[in-house]
Amino acid sequence: MTKVIVLGAGNIATHLIATFIKNKHIELVQVFNRTLASIKHLQSKTAITNSLSKLKIADIYIIAVSDKAILDVSKKIHFKNKLVVHTSGSFAMSDLACSANKGVFYPLQSFSKTKKVSFKKIPICIEAERKEDTILLEHLADLISNKVYHINSLQRKQLHVAAVFVNNFVNHLYAIGEDICNKKNVPFEILQPLIEETAKKTKKMTAFKAQTGPAIRNDQKTINTHLTMLDEQKKVIYKQLTKAIQQTYGKEL
Amino acid sequence: MTKVIVLGAGNIATHLIATFIKNKHIELVQVFNRTLASIKHLQSKTAITNSLSKLKIADIYIIAVSDKAILDVSKKIHFKNKLVVHTSGSFAMSDLACSANKGVFYPLQSFSKTKKVSFKKIPICIEAERKEDTILLEHLADLISNKVYHINSLQRKQLHVAAVFVNNFVNHLYAIGEDICNKKNVPFEILQPLIEETAKKTKKMTAFKAQTGPAIRNDQKTINTHLTMLDEQKKVIYKQLTKAIQQTYGKEL
Repeated sequence: MTKVIVLGAGNIATHLIATFIKNKHIELVQVFNRTLASIKHLQSKTAITNSLSKLKIADIYIIAVSDKAILDVSKKIHFKNKLVVHTSGSFAMSDLACSANKGVFYPLQSFSKTKKVSFKKIPICIEAERKEDTILLEHLADLISNKVYHINSLQRKQLHVAAVFVNNFVNHLYAIGEDICNKKNVPFEILQPLIEETAKKTKKMTAFKAQTGPAIRNDQKTINTHLTMLDEQKKVIYKQLTKAIQQTYGKEL
Repeated sequence: MTKVIVLGAGNIATHLIATFIKNKHIELVQVFNRTLASIKHLQSKTAITNSLSKLKIADIYIIAVSDKAILDVSKKIHFKNKLVVHTSGSFAMSDLACSANKGVFYPLQSFSKTKKVSFKKIPICIEAERKEDTILLEHLADLISNKVYHINSLQRKQLHVAAVFVNNFVNHLYAIGEDICNKKNVPFEILQPLIEETAKKTKKMTAFKAQTGPAIRNDQKTINTHLTMLDEQKKVIYKQLTKAIQQTYGKEL
């Protein structure tokens, strides 16, 4: 039985706690949060505390707080020979400031508190200083997910910046499409199947090869028509991405 | 029984032909293509021709050729009192140059020839000059798809430019993420569930509300770290989209 303590009550913490409670091979020993009110509902399921000095003994301490708070929380965990991990995409393992052994347990997904999540399909990127901790983390990750990857801190930073492009920036392009439709009284839902198909296609072929549209066809007539239809802010992005596509595929500009 | 003739042998034409042949309520009377070799395999299923002067009689003539060729093909269809439609997102209905009645039959999806497609879930945007033709097109569209929309030429142009953002530009951002991963030896598949989740989320909530990431959080530290990790071309896009997100959500710059 792997004994874990979760520190935090945000999106990732909430989903990890729910998943751990349901799993027979994991014992959720305790949950810590600065504000007790946010974790009070867990009282019947596990021990709760708002004091880091009252942390119990466990195999793994999972710091699932905001990036800004990781350092402070980690400083106050004084167990030697125990494993302390964080769940962040951009925080280096070595930046954890505890005397315990260090590691990372990074589930790569965009979580929202209210939406239920099955961890089975969520990739979990693990890293640890010591080989025995890697095995321990791998065991924990395997219990909740089918997709476990050994990723070091440098690779994780790259994944994080790549995720900004394929998640945050992509979502902004969806928002632009949505805005164009709303302003012209066109139901955005018409674009939904195209959006999903474009996303799914990345499984079947490289995005590099899947590129289509006026930019890669060098269809200047359509590009010009589109530019006349856009407001300034959208026009800048349209031009920028068209240029980037044409540079990438070596078309004459 | 709706009698149709398809003109063209490209991606959309290929999928329409396959769908019409299978449908008991649609009679595919003939397929036209300039190069006979591309449609020869259809010979056992329907009449084929490479001569526009040999077009047979049908209810609807569907011009599914490249945007550049629509005008020329439409000029050579001389049936009065028949309906001629094109399948393009950006070509106006009124630009069809035929004496027949005009319309549009625009399936909004990104087709590739080799990948099988079920039209049932593909939105079909229809438009016609005459009310009776609208009914005829609606009937045809209903036979192959569950999602039929009445969209005029102005709205269709807006949909087309929105599709460039949510499909072509989004795919380029996927390609950037892929490139970052490839160069640093990180499996791009780790990002796959995030990509699909981001796409699916547009069904549940507006993309405007779904925005997350360092830009909207105004997390300058993470933004700066990311910028140091990117090559020039990616840096320009990162800055541009970060700025656009911050402008959209009114954060202080």
